[in-house]
Amino acid sequence: MAGSSIGTIFRITTWGETHGKGVGVVIDGVPAGLSLCEDDIQIYLNRRKPGQSKFVSPRKEGDIVEILSGVFEGKTTGTPISLVVMNTDQRSKDYSNIMNCYRPGHADFTFDAKYGFRDYRGGGRSSARETIGRVAAGAVAAKILGQLGIEFTTYAKMIGGISIDEKKFDKEEIPNNPFNMPDADAAKKVATYAESMMKQKNSIGGVVECKVTGLPVGLGDPVFEKISANLGKAMLSIGATKGFEIGDGFAVANSNGATNNDNFAIDSSGKVIKQTNHSGGTLGGMTDGSELIFRTAFKPTPSIAQIQKTVNALGEEIEIEIKGRHDPMVVPRAVVVVEAMAAITILDALLLNMTARLDRICDFYK
Amino acid sequence: MAGSSIGTIFRITTWGETHGKGVGVVIDGVPAGLSLCEDDIQIYLNRRKPGQSKFVSPRKEGDIVEILSGVFEGKTTGTPISLVVMNTDQRSKDYSNIMNCYRPGHADFTFDAKYGFRDYRGGGRSSARETIGRVAAGAVAAKILGQLGIEFTTYAKMIGGISIDEKKFDKEEIPNNPFNMPDADAAKKVATYAESMMKQKNSIGGVVECKVTGLPVGLGDPVFEKISANLGKAMLSIGATKGFEIGDGFAVANSNGATNNDNFAIDSSGKVIKQTNHSGGTLGGMTDGSELIFRTAFKPTPSIAQIQKTVNALGEEIEIEIKGRHDPMVVPRAVVVVEAMAAITILDALLLNMTARLDRICDFYK
Amino acid sequence: MAGSSIGTIFRITTWGETHGKGVGVVIDGVPAGLSLCEDDIQIYLNRRKPGQSKFVSPRKEGDIVEILSGVFEGKTTGTPISLVVMNTDQRSKDYSNIMNCYRPGHADFTFDAKYGFRDYRGGGRSSARETIGRVAAGAVAAKILGQLGIEFTTYAKMIGGISIDEKKFDKEEIPNNPFNMPDADAAKKVATYAESMMKQKNSIGGVVECKVTGLPVGLGDPVFEKISANLGKAMLSIGATKGFEIGDGFAVANSNGATNNDNFAIDSSGKVIKQTNHSGGTLGGMTDGSELIFRTAFKPTPSIAQIQKTVNALGEEIEIEIKGRHDPMVVPRAVVVVEAMAAITILDALLLNMTARLDRICDFYK
Amino acid sequence: MAGSSIGTIFRITTWGETHGKGVGVVIDGVPAGLSLCEDDIQIYLNRRKPGQSKFVSPRKEGDIVEILSGVFEGKTTGTPISLVVMNTDQRSKDYSNIMNCYRPGHADFTFDAKYGFRDYRGGGRSSARETIGRVAAGAVAAKILGQLGIEFTTYAKMIGGISIDEKKFDKEEIPNNPFNMPDADAAKKVATYAESMMKQKNSIGGVVECKVTGLPVGLGDPVFEKISANLGKAMLSIGATKGFEIGDGFAVANSNGATNNDNFAIDSSGKVIKQTNHSGGTLGGMTDGSELIFRTAFKPTPSIAQIQKTVNALGEEIEIEIKGRHDPMVVPRAVVVVEAMAAITILDALLLNMTARLDRICDFYK
Repeated sequence: MAGSSIGTIFRITTWGETHGKGVGVVIDGVPAGLSLCEDDIQIYLNRRKPGQSKFVSPRKEGDIVEILSGVFEGKTTGTPISLVVMNTDQRSKDYSNIMNCYRPGHADFTFDAKYGFRDYRGGGRSSARETIGRVAAGAVAAKILGQLGIEFTTYAKMIGGISIDEKKFDKEEIPNNPFNMPDADAAKKVATYAESMMKQKNSIGGVVECKVTGLPVGLGDPVFEKISANLGKAMLSIGATKGFEIGDGFAVANSNGATNNDNFAIDSSGKVIKQTNHSGGTLGGMTDGSELIFRTAFKPTPSIAQIQKTVNALGEEIEIEIKGRHDPMVVPRAVVVVEAMAAITILDALLLNMTARLDRICDFYK
Repeated sequence: MAGSSIGTIFRITTWGETHGKGVGVVIDGVPAGLSLCEDDIQIYLNRRKPGQSKFVSPRKEGDIVEILSGVFEGKTTGTPISLVVMNTDQRSKDYSNIMNCYRPGHADFTFDAKYGFRDYRGGGRSSARETIGRVAAGAVAAKILGQLGIEFTTYAKMIGGISIDEKKFDKEEIPNNPFNMPDADAAKKVATYAESMMKQKNSIGGVVECKVTGLPVGLGDPVFEKISANLGKAMLSIGATKGFEIGDGFAVANSNGATNNDNFAIDSSGKVIKQTNHSGGTLGGMTDGSELIFRTAFKPTPSIAQIQKTVNALGEEIEIEIKGRHDPMVVPRAVVVVEAMAAITILDALLLNMTARLDRICDFYK
Repeated sequence: MAGSSIGTIFRITTWGETHGKGVGVVIDGVPAGLSLCEDDIQIYLNRRKPGQSKFVSPRKEGDIVEILSGVFEGKTTGTPISLVVMNTDQRSKDYSNIMNCYRPGHADFTFDAKYGFRDYRGGGRSSARETIGRVAAGAVAAKILGQLGIEFTTYAKMIGGISIDEKKFDKEEIPNNPFNMPDADAAKKVATYAESMMKQKNSIGGVVECKVTGLPVGLGDPVFEKISANLGKAMLSIGATKGFEIGDGFAVANSNGATNNDNFAIDSSGKVIKQTNHSGGTLGGMTDGSELIFRTAFKPTPSIAQIQKTVNALGEEIEIEIKGRHDPMVVPRAVVVVEAMAAITILDALLLNMTARLDRICDFYK
Repeated sequence: MAGSSIGTIFRITTWGETHGKGVGVVIDGVPAGLSLCEDDIQIYLNRRKPGQSKFVSPRKEGDIVEILSGVFEGKTTGTPISLVVMNTDQRSKDYSNIMNCYRPGHADFTFDAKYGFRDYRGGGRSSARETIGRVAAGAVAAKILGQLGIEFTTYAKMIGGISIDEKKFDKEEIPNNPFNMPDADAAKKVATYAESMMKQKNSIGGVVECKVTGLPVGLGDPVFEKISANLGKAMLSIGATKGFEIGDGFAVANSNGATNNDNFAIDSSGKVIKQTNHSGGTLGGMTDGSELIFRTAFKPTPSIAQIQKTVNALGEEIEIEIKGRHDPMVVPRAVVVVEAMAAITILDALLLNMTARLDRICDFYK
C-alpha cells in the first residue's frame, strides 16, 4: 500500500512525481450538486505557486488545473472528480550529481532502501509538487464547507524564530507579504533574517497556524477518529512537518487543571459556550462549537546550496552541493496546503457525523 | 462510524465504557504462530493500573485480562484475538450531581450534542479505562516486534513544567518512581510540586517521550501513510493529548537547514548511518534506521475537586465540585498507553512494508 | 489481515472459534438512540439454533447472548456494542482422529497451509458457530431498518433439488416446518428425501432466497460499491456458499433485452414504478424502489459419516469416518444468516447514501 | 462515498464518464520493480475495444492509454500509477430524446433519484467505458501474477442460451471468433442466433467463465475476506452482471456431500492434491491449490432499438426508441473485464497473505 489516499467518505487519491508528466488527484465522494469550475480550484493552486517572491523558488510552474470528470453542466455529479496539472517546466537536466547521492534531510536514502530504486529527479514523489493534488482537493472541500458557513484563516505564525505579535493580528495583511503573515512588522523582520540566511546558502523553518470558525458541535468520533487525531495525521502527512498541536498544545504540560479547563456558560441567545478556549475547539475528540485552532511545525528546507557531507548509493562518503531552484523556507507556500488538508479532514468528519443519531436518520428518510 | 478501530493489517477494535460490564479489544490480523498467554498482556495492563501511588487514582481496578479467542495450545492461530477485562469496581453510586452537568474539560457536552444523550457514569466511553483495550493490543504488537529486535523505551519527560535532565537519563530508574521518569531527581521535584497542587485540588500536565530502536529502514509510506503521520494520529487519539512532535519537533521552527539536516556517513560495517538525528528516525515519512523518537503532550486532568463554573443540560449556569477518585496527573499512567499505540502503529507499517518490492514478493512465493 | 470485519459505517467484527471460550461480535457505528435489549438479538439467534429438529444438528447450544457495551438505559449510545455468546457445550472430546487429518470439503488443509497450524477442534473459526456474531449484528441492523419500514422475507427456496411451488407460496408457513420453506408440500417432500439421505450417511445442498421491501431508491453506489456487489460479497462470505444471483440471475443468459428490460410506468399516485422486476430491485448497482430479491446457493454439509478417502498432515493417504453431531443440510439454519448479512449490507448502504447530495447535507446541518 | 475504489493493498480508483474528457484509473500499491510500459496495458485494452466485428458496437474508440506517473526508466517505482485514456470519439450529438427519459434496464432513473440529476450523455459513469480503468489496472495485476506463474483463461461459456461443448474446448480458438468462445462450432451457432436477434432489434445475454492456474495455497481469509467473496464482489461490480458462482456453483443445491466433497490424495511428488474439483479451487474461502474456476452471468444489453414503453423525468409515460451504436451483447467484450477484475482481486489477496505467519515475517526481516 503506497498510501496515496486519505479520507473515508470524502476520499482523495493523489498521484504524480515532480518531474514526471504531471500530478493530479481523484476525489471520490464529492456530493452531487456543487457548482464547480476550474477557477474555483485555480485560486487555491495560485496560493501555493512558486515564483511569487524572492523568498520562494523562482521556478515558473504553470500549474494550470484541468477537470477531467465528475462535473457536468457546471455541477458535480456525485462521481469521482479527476483533476490534473500537467508539468510544463520539465527542462531536461543533468541529474548525474544527485542520482546516486543521498541528500541530507531528503528521502533519497529511505526510498532506495524501501523500493530498491527511485525516481531521482527532483525528489520524485517526495516533492513539494506532490501537494498540488492536496490543494486542488482542498479547494473543493473548502467550497462545500463554505456553503455551510465554515471558514478558514491560515497563516505563518512564526518563521525562523520570529513570531507574529497577536496584538497586531490583521487578517487582511496575510496575502500582502511574501510570507503569508498576519503582521506586517513581523513579516519585515522575517524578510531581513531570510535574506541573511539566503546569503549563507542556508534555510529556515517555521510554524503555520489555522483557525476554523462556523463548525457544528460534534464533528469527530470519540476514540480513534478524534477530529484532533485526524487533523494531526493530515498535517503530519505533509512533507517537512515535525510537529502538530491543538489549542494550547505543548504549553498544557506547564499548565494546571484550574487554568486549562474551559468553563461553560450560557450566552445571551441561550447557547452553550466556553468562556475560554484552551482546548482549541475540541473536547473528547469532537468539535465543541468554539473556534478550532491548531499549529504545524515545518523544518527548514533541506535543499541548501552549502557543501554538505553525505554518502552515495555505492557506499562512499562524498560531499555535495545542491544546485537549482529551491525555496529558502517551506512555510509561505505550506500555508495553503495546511488549509487544504484541514478542509479535507473536516469535511470528511462532517459527512460521517450525519449517521450518528437514529432520529436524524429517520428524519432524513422520511 | 463510531471510529473504534485503527490499523490496516494489524487492526484493533476497542469497546466498552468505564462503568459498564467490561472493556475489551478485538485484534484482527495477528500473524499465526506467536506464543501468547494472558501474562504477556497482564504485564502491560499492570503498568497502567491505578492505585499504585498517591499520585494516581486510588481506585482498585482488578484489570484481569482474559483471552477469549485466537489462541490455541499457547499460540496465535491467525484468527482474531478477543481480549476482555470485566469491570469489578462497579460500586453503585449516585450520579445525580453529574448526569445533567457538563464538566469543564470533559466530553459531556460534545457527547450530548452529537448523540443526543450519553452514558454519564464516569465519562462512559471517554474514560481512561478506554485505554485498556489499546494497552492489551499493544502488548501483543510489542511482543511480535520484540522478536524482530525492535525495543521501546517510554517515560515521562516532563511533568508540571519539571523536565528530566538528559545527563542524568537512567533507563533503569523509569519503573522506580511513581511518575515513570528516567531521572530520580526530577521525579522528586515532581513529587513535591504535585503534592502542593493536590492540596489546592488542582491537577498538572506533562510530556511523554518514546524511543524505538531496532527498526528496519523503510517503514511507512511516502504520502498520507507516513510513519510520522500515523504515529501522530495514534498519539492524538489518546484522551487528554494536545500535541505531538517527532525528532526536534517544534524546535525546528527556530533552526536552519545547515544545522537541522542530518549528514549521512558510512559506519565501520559499511552501513549507511546518520551523524545526527534531528529528524527523529524518519525521512520522507519512512524510518531511516536511526532511533525513532517522539513526544506527546498531555493536558492536566480535567477532573479537579475545586468548585468550577459550568452549565447543565437544561441550559442553566451552575457550579460543580467533582468528587471521587481522580488522577491528579495523566502522564504516569499514559506512558504505557503511548508505548502500546506506538507498537500497534509500527507493527502495522512493518506488515504493510512487506509488499513494497516485486523482487521480495517473488522470493516470498518461490 | 484476518478479514474479520465488514462494512464501512455500520461495521462489524466477529471473533471466536466453535470450541473456544465463546464467540462474539463488536458492532461499531450503530446510531445512538435505538431501543435495544438482549431479547431483540436472542430472537434472531434462536432462529439459527441447532437442536430444533432431526434435520439439524442435535447439539444443544445455549447461545445466550449478552450485551457488554454500547447500550445505556435501554438505548444504544453510539459507541461500539460488544455482544458475546459464551460456549457452554464444550464437552472435552478426543480429537486425535481429526487433528492431523484433512477432512474433504473442509478448510483443514487450507488453514494448515496458510497459517502453519490450526485449531482442529470442530473446524475452529471455519465453523457454523462463526455465524453467531453475524446473526447478532444482523438483528441490530434489522431492527434499525424496521423503523424505516424495510422488511425481510427469507426462506429455503430449494433443498436437495426440491423447489418450492411459487403458486403455493405462504409466508406464514416458513417457521412451521423444519426447513424454513414457504410451501408445506415441498417441505414434506424434502423431509422424505432428507431422511433417505441421512440413512445413507449423506448430506444435501440447497438455495436460500431473500426478499426485501420498503427500500428507498438509490441505495448502493454506481461502481465498486453496487448494492448487488456488496450483497454478493456478504452472501459469499458465509461458509458453504457457492453462488449468488440477483433478480433473474443466471437465467438472464438465456433471455433477451426486450423481455429482460423492465419497463417503467407511473402508478396512480404519480410514482415511478417498474412493470416487471427481472432486475431484482436494482439498476446500475442502486436500489430502484421495487422489491430486492436474491438467491444464495449452499453446498451439502461436508461432514458426512460415510468413510471418505483423504490425507493427513504427514502426507499419508488415509480413510476417515466423521462422527459427531452434524447438520445433514446447511440451508434451514442458513436462512437467518442470509437475512442477517443482507440487513448489515443494506443498512451500511443506507447510511452511506445520506451524503450523496449537497442540498440534503445543507438541510441536515441547517 | 461514490465507491470508485477497490482493493486493500493493491488498490485501484477509477474515474470518468463515457462522454466526458476521458476515463482513467489510479493504481496504488503496485510493488516497485515491475517492468511496465504502455504496450503492456494496451494489449488488454485492445481486447475490450469496440468495433471489432459486427456483433459489437461499431464505434471506433481510440482507447490509447498513457502512463502519467509511477513508472521511471521502464520500471514501477512503488508510487501510484495514473493511467488515462482520453476520449476521442466525442461527436457532438443531440441528447434531447434521452436527457429526460428513463431508459428501461438502465441506471437513468436511479442516478436521478440518488444524485438529483445526472450526466445523461450515453450513460455517464454507468457506461461500458467505465471498465477501461478496470482493464488497464488488471493488465498491471496480471503482469505481476504472471511473474509468479499465475495464468488466466477467460472466455464466453454461453451466449443467448448456446453453450460451449466442453469436449471441443480449445483455448487457442478463443481469440479467433468474435465471441471469445473456446469452441468454434458454438461460436457459429451464436453468430446465427445473434444475427436473427439483431434483425429483431433485440439483444442477448450470456455467461463468462474464468480459470486461474498456478495459485499458491492459502490466498483469501477465512471469514469476510474469502477469496470467493471478493471475486464475487469484483464480478458483481461489473455493469450488467446478475450472478456469480464458483466451482459447481448453483448445481451444488442438487448435489450431495458424498459426490460434492473433493477427496484429497498425495501425488507422485508428495504434494497434497484433490481428486476432483467441485469446490472450484477454494476451501473455507482460501485457495486450495487446484484450478480456480468461476462464472459470471451477464444480462442482455438493455439498449435495444425496439420501441419501449417508459417514463420521463416529468412523470409522463412515453415511448422511446434508442438509436446509436450499441453492442447487441455484452459478453464478448466483458471477457477481458472479468479477467482484469479477477487479477486485481487475486493480487490483492496474494499481497495480504504475506503477513499470515510470524515465522515468514521474521524470515522476511532477517
